[in-house]
Amino acid sequence: MCVEKTPWEQVIDFHGHTCPEISIGYRVAQIATRELGIRPAPSSELVVTAYTHSCALDAFQVLNRATYGRGNLRVEEKQQHVYHFQYTGTSEGLQISIQAELLDHLVKDHDQMTTREKQNSYLEAIQYILGTEETLFCTIQKL
Amino acid sequence: MCVEKTPWEQVIDFHGHTCPEISIGYRVAQIATRELGIRPAPSSELVVTAYTHSCALDAFQVLNRATYGRGNLRVEEKQQHVYHFQYTGTSEGLQISIQAELLDHLVKDHDQMTTREKQNSYLEAIQYILGTEETLFCTIQKL
Repeated sequence: MCVEKTPWEQVIDFHGHTCPEISIGYRVAQIATRELGIRPAPSSELVVTAYTHSCALDAFQVLNRATYGRGNLRVEEKQQHVYHFQYTGTSEGLQISIQAELLDHLVKDHDQMTTREKQNSYLEAIQYILGTEETLFCTIQKL
Repeated sequence: MCVEKTPWEQVIDFHGHTCPEISIGYRVAQIATRELGIRPAPSSELVVTAYTHSCALDAFQVLNRATYGRGNLRVEEKQQHVYHFQYTGTSEGLQISIQAELLDHLVKDHDQMTTREKQNSYLEAIQYILGTEETLFCTIQKL
């Protein structure tokens, strides 16, 4: 039997591992897809700008088709989990900002943990990122 | 019936269009896979450094599993189609340099062409990149 990969499987296969930051990217990419709606014109390209470099970027490459090679995935380093989406040829953009409280929740001192404890801490963080209410995850602005 | 995508289809699906530079990346990625052989240790990561930013990068993301998000695909801009591959924890790297004559062959003045002429010129370049003898395509060095 042939079963198509889920979007989550596609992202994790491409990225190569499961971690909290790819989970943030996965959820942001899904919200962006929902909020952006249909492409305004066939020639219009979605440009994604991330205000920090992290594993999250790989989710936009797979789910929003904004790839590093093609040049429509960009990073402006401000150490902020804020992501901006805009179709070329349009004036309105979409900005998704991860809640500071959610990021605080992820900060753990991994140095003093065993590998097993680290894995459990990661798993808990991923479940929280993917499962928490959307208003606790991010704010969405049309700019 | 379920038919798995070919490596070429995987790359083009991810990249979003067919062009000469993604074809260069595709062929380089395939040569690197052959030359690098097996991963030296399970924890070892392949790091790809490109000496120019172009569409070619997306092929390394798909075929060599060196992604921009994970940070093992890097660009040091020198305007050269030279690509360096190295597993972490090893001292030997692999460098693949595209032949200058091949790049000269690709330079066309597209501004004065019709869309159809441009498409034909692209297709011809892609066929040349993928089909030309390997010694005319690149030089391979173990460093």
